[in-house]
Amino acid sequence: MREVLAQAAFQLFLERGFERTTVDDIVARAGVGRRSFFRYFPSKEDVVFPDHERCLAEMTEFLAAVDDSDPVGAVCDAARIVLRMYAADPEFSVQRYRLTREVPGLRTYELSVVRRYEQTLAGHLRGRFGADGDGELRAEVIAASVVAAHNNGLRLWLRSGGAGDPEAAVDHALDLVRGVWERPAGPSPAREKPALPAAGPSGITAGSGDNEVIVMVASKGTPMWRVVQQIEAAVGES
Amino acid sequence: MREVLAQAAFQLFLERGFERTTVDDIVARAGVGRRSFFRYFPSKEDVVFPDHERCLAEMTEFLAAVDDSDPVGAVCDAARIVLRMYAADPEFSVQRYRLTREVPGLRTYELSVVRRYEQTLAGHLRGRFGADGDGELRAEVIAASVVAAHNNGLRLWLRSGGAGDPEAAVDHALDLVRGVWERPAGPSPAREKPALPAAGPSGITAGSGDNEVIVMVASKGTPMWRVVQQIEAAVGES
Repeated sequence: MREVLAQAAFQLFLERGFERTTVDDIVARAGVGRRSFFRYFPSKEDVVFPDHERCLAEMTEFLAAVDDSDPVGAVCDAARIVLRMYAADPEFSVQRYRLTREVPGLRTYELSVVRRYEQTLAGHLRGRFGADGDGELRAEVIAASVVAAHNNGLRLWLRSGGAGDPEAAVDHALDLVRGVWERPAGPSPAREKPALPAAGPSGITAGSGDNEVIVMVASKGTPMWRVVQQIEAAVGES
Repeated sequence: MREVLAQAAFQLFLERGFERTTVDDIVARAGVGRRSFFRYFPSKEDVVFPDHERCLAEMTEFLAAVDDSDPVGAVCDAARIVLRMYAADPEFSVQRYRLTREVPGLRTYELSVVRRYEQTLAGHLRGRFGADGDGELRAEVIAASVVAAHNNGLRLWLRSGGAGDPEAAVDHALDLVRGVWERPAGPSPAREKPALPAAGPSGITAGSGDNEVIVMVASKGTPMWRVVQQIEAAVGES
């Protein structure tokens, strides 16, 4: 029933526009009563985003169960739950993306949903970082970065018409954020390889074996994000 | 007139709540006609945020005129324009903050305003970073970080009831973001002091004089954000 209503609504939004479609039109197309509609959807806006509540619940559940070793990685993984929801139905996601760009009310609705994801991620990080010092500040900035990076990758895919695999773009975007904010993990077999070769004027030399030290040499003009990417690359090298 | 309407509206919102106040109530209190209201404000929501349009225009103007040497610093400075708007009238800002937390429609409205600030900042950074490689991604992530940091500092001040100077908290928050994302500036007199003393197990040694090299030594367990803060501190040391 929920699915039937959502499909009927969406067909109508595409045919005659969001504003000119009424709830009466939707229930007539779906062949059900008006009260059925409101049993499933609080408003016409909600029918455009039928899966966000489930997705938010899944995100909350995931974060409650995740271990504490890598909070930034955990919120990146949590953001990927949203991506999978979009990727599960490319055609619907692309149509909705186009519709949302045209209807201000839907854009506003989407902003409030995105904000709830962001607050869920920030809440998790706050719990991990604690209230000391900049814990809350870092939690909010990282959550905002993760959401922006996720949405950048997602939007690339939606703009391309939903072709191919959206995961690569989102992984790439989230890696940028992780590279900047994540605590490099402790020693692991992958990190006990011999030292990397020196990499020229802006390079990194990582100690080998149990020598847990990074020595980084860069010219002062090197952008900070690039320094961080290179440190991450060296630390994560397999 | 605009000011009079805004004050009348706000008094009524505080007295009887936002939802239960009509535009007719507002114009009656202000002693003007209904059409005057709509000449100044498209909706009841707009009267709660009477200065955002002006502030957005000022931000756009500022960014159009700023030089290219430090794009991340420029968007941080642009964000401070919003802070100054709040700080100019602490009592109004604090009342609005409380009102906005209670009225879902105002929260949604505020989200859409914040989003416009974020897009203005991202647009500036996109123009500076170019479309190559990760330019757009970095622009969006940095803009989101700057907005989150600004809002964290601003919210601290609003929650405290608007006591004292909000700039310190916002400066501190924005410094965290700059430290992570900003390109360290080129050599300057302040950076040509003798080398810093080594700073223990996680420390930085900066070359002196014209030697434009940073050598950074840190244990692998050091969180990335702390590494970046320390590099920034060393580079910026006067």
